[in-house]
Amino acid sequence: MTLKKTPANGMKDVMPSEMEIRDYLVSVIKKTYAEFGFQSIETPCVENIENLMSKQGGENEKLIFKILKRGEKLNLEEAKSENDLVDLGLRYDLTVPLVRFFSNHENELPTPFKTLQMGNVWRADRPQKGRYRQFMQCDIDIIGEPSNLAEIELILATTTTLGRIGFENFQIRINERRLLKAMARYSGFAEESFDEVFVILDKMDKIGLDGVRKELMKEDFAVEAIDRYISLFEGLKDASDPLAYLEETLRGSIEEDVIPNLRETIDMVEQTKTAKFDMVFDPTIVRGMSYYTGTIFEISMPQLGISCGGGGRYDNMVGRFTGRDVPACGFSIGFERILLILMEQHFQIPGRSEMVAYLLEKDLPAQRLSMALSDARKEREDGKHVLIVRMNKNKKFQKQQLSEHGYTRFVEFYAHPITED
Amino acid sequence: MTLKKTPANGMKDVMPSEMEIRDYLVSVIKKTYAEFGFQSIETPCVENIENLMSKQGGENEKLIFKILKRGEKLNLEEAKSENDLVDLGLRYDLTVPLVRFFSNHENELPTPFKTLQMGNVWRADRPQKGRYRQFMQCDIDIIGEPSNLAEIELILATTTTLGRIGFENFQIRINERRLLKAMARYSGFAEESFDEVFVILDKMDKIGLDGVRKELMKEDFAVEAIDRYISLFEGLKDASDPLAYLEETLRGSIEEDVIPNLRETIDMVEQTKTAKFDMVFDPTIVRGMSYYTGTIFEISMPQLGISCGGGGRYDNMVGRFTGRDVPACGFSIGFERILLILMEQHFQIPGRSEMVAYLLEKDLPAQRLSMALSDARKEREDGKHVLIVRMNKNKKFQKQQLSEHGYTRFVEFYAHPITED
Repeated sequence: MTLKKTPANGMKDVMPSEMEIRDYLVSVIKKTYAEFGFQSIETPCVENIENLMSKQGGENEKLIFKILKRGEKLNLEEAKSENDLVDLGLRYDLTVPLVRFFSNHENELPTPFKTLQMGNVWRADRPQKGRYRQFMQCDIDIIGEPSNLAEIELILATTTTLGRIGFENFQIRINERRLLKAMARYSGFAEESFDEVFVILDKMDKIGLDGVRKELMKEDFAVEAIDRYISLFEGLKDASDPLAYLEETLRGSIEEDVIPNLRETIDMVEQTKTAKFDMVFDPTIVRGMSYYTGTIFEISMPQLGISCGGGGRYDNMVGRFTGRDVPACGFSIGFERILLILMEQHFQIPGRSEMVAYLLEKDLPAQRLSMALSDARKEREDGKHVLIVRMNKNKKFQKQQLSEHGYTRFVEFYAHPITED
Repeated sequence: MTLKKTPANGMKDVMPSEMEIRDYLVSVIKKTYAEFGFQSIETPCVENIENLMSKQGGENEKLIFKILKRGEKLNLEEAKSENDLVDLGLRYDLTVPLVRFFSNHENELPTPFKTLQMGNVWRADRPQKGRYRQFMQCDIDIIGEPSNLAEIELILATTTTLGRIGFENFQIRINERRLLKAMARYSGFAEESFDEVFVILDKMDKIGLDGVRKELMKEDFAVEAIDRYISLFEGLKDASDPLAYLEETLRGSIEEDVIPNLRETIDMVEQTKTAKFDMVFDPTIVRGMSYYTGTIFEISMPQLGISCGGGGRYDNMVGRFTGRDVPACGFSIGFERILLILMEQHFQIPGRSEMVAYLLEKDLPAQRLSMALSDARKEREDGKHVLIVRMNKNKKFQKQQLSEHGYTRFVEFYAHPITED
């Protein structure tokens, strides 16, 4: 009987060289967020299928790996549809499990609850380069903090983490869902068409302001609304202080706390940040998920032209599950994407231990073997990584191979010390 | 719509206090094994169902969580049995994935390949106290090392790990499958009844030598064989050097390298160990899995009356999958059991960071907020865990609650510095 040697379709084996960087990343993330008062939790990879299919997951619900009922509960003959066959599923994100966790343990948790969850999630997506059906997500959330202290701390913790990994000159681009709405409302769009408008606005970085205008025209919105909307963005371009410009222009159309809040968040982060990055107010940031209710933000790496994570405030979501609203704000770091960048840049782990290989001649007498093990013990206590192997006949080839696997120093032990060197 | 608040049946949420100890355990294990030259790998939690049902997993194959086929591949109407419905499953151990990984990547890996795999596995067992359907396994293996260097290094690395976690006065009990067989052969049992004899021998620690004799009698083995077997163990009790006694007695019935090998393994570990424990030769250790071919060992905690892991040599197993035998030896640490012991003993993580809570008066002016964030930044750079929260009206109650969650120092920030104190 032989095994299928390859991993399940769309999944991957993690080799030692990648694993080392993964472990390093995890340790920096855990350590940094802990310093910011975030506590790690873990939820099972498997959730009850009703929870996963509760319409919180959007498109992801179509990608669930579903788990067959077991024993007597499985009745194949009477099963009419898929749903009769399954009772569990692999989680497709960490948000549903977090909300379930919070509602299950609320009384045992501090207020606010600042938490970090790192774990695998699964999506039966069409496999493609660099995207796998099992991948790590890294979510950081603050539940129970209504003020912008949540945003400030999330952004400071996340950027400190990125800085420690070695990233610089990145941006945190920030916006507010209520500001987005106020701008659309001020322009004269109807509330029910906001989402459609935002989908088009979201393309600004690709198609420019002219492109946005053209796409809005195609959708048959009122020309007056489009003109007013576009001129708002033109005004923003020329404004020396965009937030002041919006505060002035939108007065009466926007909740009073939105702009001061946003301004304070940006100022506080700028004043107390540790990493080299910029806070950028970007009124075109939309973020897809409709559950956001306030601040939204993204990590942008302009040199690479990509985003490496993002998040925002979602004050209504816990309530949708538990019946009682609790303010919440979260950040999701693109763990796999960051890992990929580091791998492509041949990232060197700082303070990585020296790798030493001891080569032992075959049939070493006990006394010599004991000496080799004792020497290794000393080096290991110093934190060195010591591999002890038997010496091959072709010692040169063996050393060359070990070099390729990262070993930089070799120590040889022979049966008779006199033959050394 | 409301969620089921509890985790899937038989699975559990990990609370922050437990998670901290889990993370600490993982870090000590990873660091220590790395020093011994073990490289971490990871395989997907999901494997092709054929691999999981290839009869390597014994009883565990009955406990697989099976995953439904997706899309067009799922044909409910024509499905005759469970197997027509599923194509994947959650792994029930890390051994099958390791062997698959090794056969898939053999050419990219060093020889010998020393590897550490930590990950969750799933078994649809009847839930019971302290045993969950998702749990962490921790396997350490050396593939490609035929000599007892593998055993010595595995035992040294594992005991060093246990020592660093704080365990002492434990034992590594060691035996050899070939010795077990030689003793049965010498006594006159037929080769095909060995497994049955060993199942009874395995109960020695519970039922004693008399009990073993009685159970063997019940099974209708030849009285001469039973007498000879029992007297072997009686002789062992009186022997000042049990290994010498067996070497003498079994001469001709046992491969010549078995006893010297075992002796050298024990001696080398005793001479170069770092933790406080004893190597104990125990001729009654059996270990259930039939795939072991040589040395077998267990971590025994006599004060607690339990075993916390074990392993052995399985030189034929890779070959059963790949068609070509490769020597292999492994250790599996009882991660969840060790965690449970630590939790019950109220384990204190050494060097744990001070936990500080900053309480900010509501509506703190920007300058004061900035000062609080800057102070926190300094403390965080020193590795302290700083939580920043808004001050509640009932400050005393708030502090008391935070104390219960581990905060030991409180810093208060008011709008007007003058009101402090």
